[in-house]
Amino acid sequence: MKYLATALLAATFGLQAAEQPKNIIMVVGDGMGPAVTTGYRYFADNPDTPEIEDTVFDRHLVGMASTYPAHVSGLVTDSAAGATALSAGVKSYNGAIAVDVDKKPLPTVLQWAKEKGMKTGVAVTSQINHATPASYAVHNDSRKNYDAIADSMFDHKINGQFVLDVMLGGGWDYFIRDDRNIVDEFKQAGYHYISDVNQLSNTPADKPLLGLFADTGMDWALDMPNQPRLKAMTETAVKHLENDKGFFLLVEGSQVDWAEHGNDIASAMAEMHDLALTLEWLEQYVEQHPDTLVVVTADHSTGGLTIGANGKYEWKPAPLKSLKASPINIARLAVKSKTPSSVVAEQTGLRLTSKEKKAINKTEKDEKAMFKAITKLLDKRSNTGWTSSGHTAVDVQVFAMGKWKQQFAGHIDNTDIPKTLFQMLGKPQ
Amino acid sequence: MKYLATALLAATFGLQAAEQPKNIIMVVGDGMGPAVTTGYRYFADNPDTPEIEDTVFDRHLVGMASTYPAHVSGLVTDSAAGATALSAGVKSYNGAIAVDVDKKPLPTVLQWAKEKGMKTGVAVTSQINHATPASYAVHNDSRKNYDAIADSMFDHKINGQFVLDVMLGGGWDYFIRDDRNIVDEFKQAGYHYISDVNQLSNTPADKPLLGLFADTGMDWALDMPNQPRLKAMTETAVKHLENDKGFFLLVEGSQVDWAEHGNDIASAMAEMHDLALTLEWLEQYVEQHPDTLVVVTADHSTGGLTIGANGKYEWKPAPLKSLKASPINIARLAVKSKTPSSVVAEQTGLRLTSKEKKAINKTEKDEKAMFKAITKLLDKRSNTGWTSSGHTAVDVQVFAMGKWKQQFAGHIDNTDIPKTLFQMLGKPQ
Ligand SMILES: [Zn+2]
Ligand SMILES: [Zn+2]
Repeated sequence: MKYLATALLAATFGLQAAEQPKNIIMVVGDGMGPAVTTGYRYFADNPDTPEIEDTVFDRHLVGMASTYPAHVSGLVTDSAAGATALSAGVKSYNGAIAVDVDKKPLPTVLQWAKEKGMKTGVAVTSQINHATPASYAVHNDSRKNYDAIADSMFDHKINGQFVLDVMLGGGWDYFIRDDRNIVDEFKQAGYHYISDVNQLSNTPADKPLLGLFADTGMDWALDMPNQPRLKAMTETAVKHLENDKGFFLLVEGSQVDWAEHGNDIASAMAEMHDLALTLEWLEQYVEQHPDTLVVVTADHSTGGLTIGANGKYEWKPAPLKSLKASPINIARLAVKSKTPSSVVAEQTGLRLTSKEKKAINKTEKDEKAMFKAITKLLDKRSNTGWTSSGHTAVDVQVFAMGKWKQQFAGHIDNTDIPKTLFQMLGKPQ
Repeated sequence: MKYLATALLAATFGLQAAEQPKNIIMVVGDGMGPAVTTGYRYFADNPDTPEIEDTVFDRHLVGMASTYPAHVSGLVTDSAAGATALSAGVKSYNGAIAVDVDKKPLPTVLQWAKEKGMKTGVAVTSQINHATPASYAVHNDSRKNYDAIADSMFDHKINGQFVLDVMLGGGWDYFIRDDRNIVDEFKQAGYHYISDVNQLSNTPADKPLLGLFADTGMDWALDMPNQPRLKAMTETAVKHLENDKGFFLLVEGSQVDWAEHGNDIASAMAEMHDLALTLEWLEQYVEQHPDTLVVVTADHSTGGLTIGANGKYEWKPAPLKSLKASPINIARLAVKSKTPSSVVAEQTGLRLTSKEKKAINKTEKDEKAMFKAITKLLDKRSNTGWTSSGHTAVDVQVFAMGKWKQQFAGHIDNTDIPKTLFQMLGKPQ
């Protein structure tokens, strides 16, 4: 109905009603709920101007989506069921990788794009066989079967072809194993292989591409300060995927979620910035390539993050802007030092109060305890709240770029996104 | 720009580009952020059907709004600055009632409507001189000056006329005082006065109307189970305001915020239901009166509410559906009993575990402590999280009904709502 109305609008304005996007770029901010996008606006704001500037998210907001999984898993989704809803348009159980509640494989929009002759890719900051990219590319009963999912990324074929033409992210632990070296298999099958993000910009686009840059997930954005890693991977992926028949690319800012699982607001903001830089690049790309549609959403919220807490009417992002490393890496350095508080002060860029110094110095010399002490200090400084180490059910925002953006507007369910994409890609109902 | 595009669209579809709404109904859900609207969907869902049904909120979502106050008050707004942003289109300090940071009175959309000859009204579940209705009708340096604000509601005139033709809500404490009886003054000035919600439906619309139904705020929705109080007030207000020149009505579901300040999820859900019934009635009204625009938003979020918490992937609204009274009233009953746990079991409609009984029975016989024990029990049963007794900065949703709804779509700032309304009402820039 909404689809028809949009088609009618398009016709009214002289576009071809039947015109559909040539290229589709689906962007998932894992764990990117409304609190973290709002917080990012204030984190990114230039304090030297009186206005609070809109972010790239603000410029493209079109609506919100519900995220609940299949009834059997209650109301709070995990990343696997969330990604399956987004890739296949079907609610499934928590843990499902593009299979339904009966564990039957579900066709995904990425797979359908491949079937139609489009090129396909994934560019993510997690390992490439993690829940979200896995749910677009392959099928498995459980997200935990990392080795089997990595295997499927080579073994699963569509019309005799590999599912993915471009794979960028982490994952050596799963792709270079004692029992199987999938990297070598891809190389022998004609893929370029790169293992350093600095190779991204100078690898020729003449062959399909596998790029793995870490054992599991990539380093935290805060620990790669000179390398907007998701933007670099996205640019390379797009360059490699461009072709006459179009492409489908999945991009994931995977570690917003990981930061929030750790209740680490500084890393969450840095991961959001890494994603925002990617979206700013995509914003320009769509302007120059009006045949491209970008849809951005989250699979769920994480951490029960709140922007303000403890009865105080304030949230202060300034203390989150001066970190020289991620809190977990600062903790690693601090526990090796005789005066942990001076390491924490130096690495966070904050002048610590004597009370803060005392709290840090009396923390046991254990990385995890030190990490907790540092993130607690940053929560207190910024007045950030958390209620969970897990996910929550609040609706997530939907953003879209390109002339089809209104098809994702208003309140929708996360499954409506792939349903609309399937329709655009001409899949018979 | 957005405004122009919409006008163009309207022209394309054969509407008069210059056609503007005759009646405007602005609805504020105080403290109604994305977590509480999401939670309400699952609370309201019929568990006997496999689908999760859309709520009236879902049917009318058009975008989201930022809510930060003037720079001097940081990033987290109170209800006064929030209402001033929504009524006058200007960011001010926390506490401001339609005055700017220099305490200069700001013209409001309701006042401008009155100036144009439209009728005006407020229908709220707080006292009618509370921050939100006050910021639409009058001006004051501080929301705390309740008596002065009540006085202004009689004394402040626009073109020699009273600001408000209809006032419905609570407020005896401020309108019937030892030093001044404003109710009598309104009666002498020709207003109907009613003091019982049952009079709402049978008071003739021949005269302006003042209805006060409580000392301060009205009873909790949970304590008025047979009376959808906001819907009843809204219906009466609309009936009294309808006239050839149109009307501007402010409706507020004031106590969503109050429930959240108390971290009381059961009351928050009941207040949301009271508001949802009102919106369902307005949905029909707009269908029958296409000359009417309804805009719905929140001033901010409250409580740092999260739908899910404590590392568990679940939120369970069922235990929130069987309460026979509000938690604070259950607490009042329980502390008078020798076996508080049996009162709590009976009034919440829950079969308590022996651990839960013990926790209730060992709570000191103090209403506040008992209230905390009951809300904690409900939080645990539902797996609800909170981080604050105050407000948070997360963006709020914007909903709209009527053919002008797209003018509020996408990401906007809360001040954009009155700016658009001023434009619709022909206020010179
Ligand atoms: Zn996730
Ligand atoms: Zn408020």
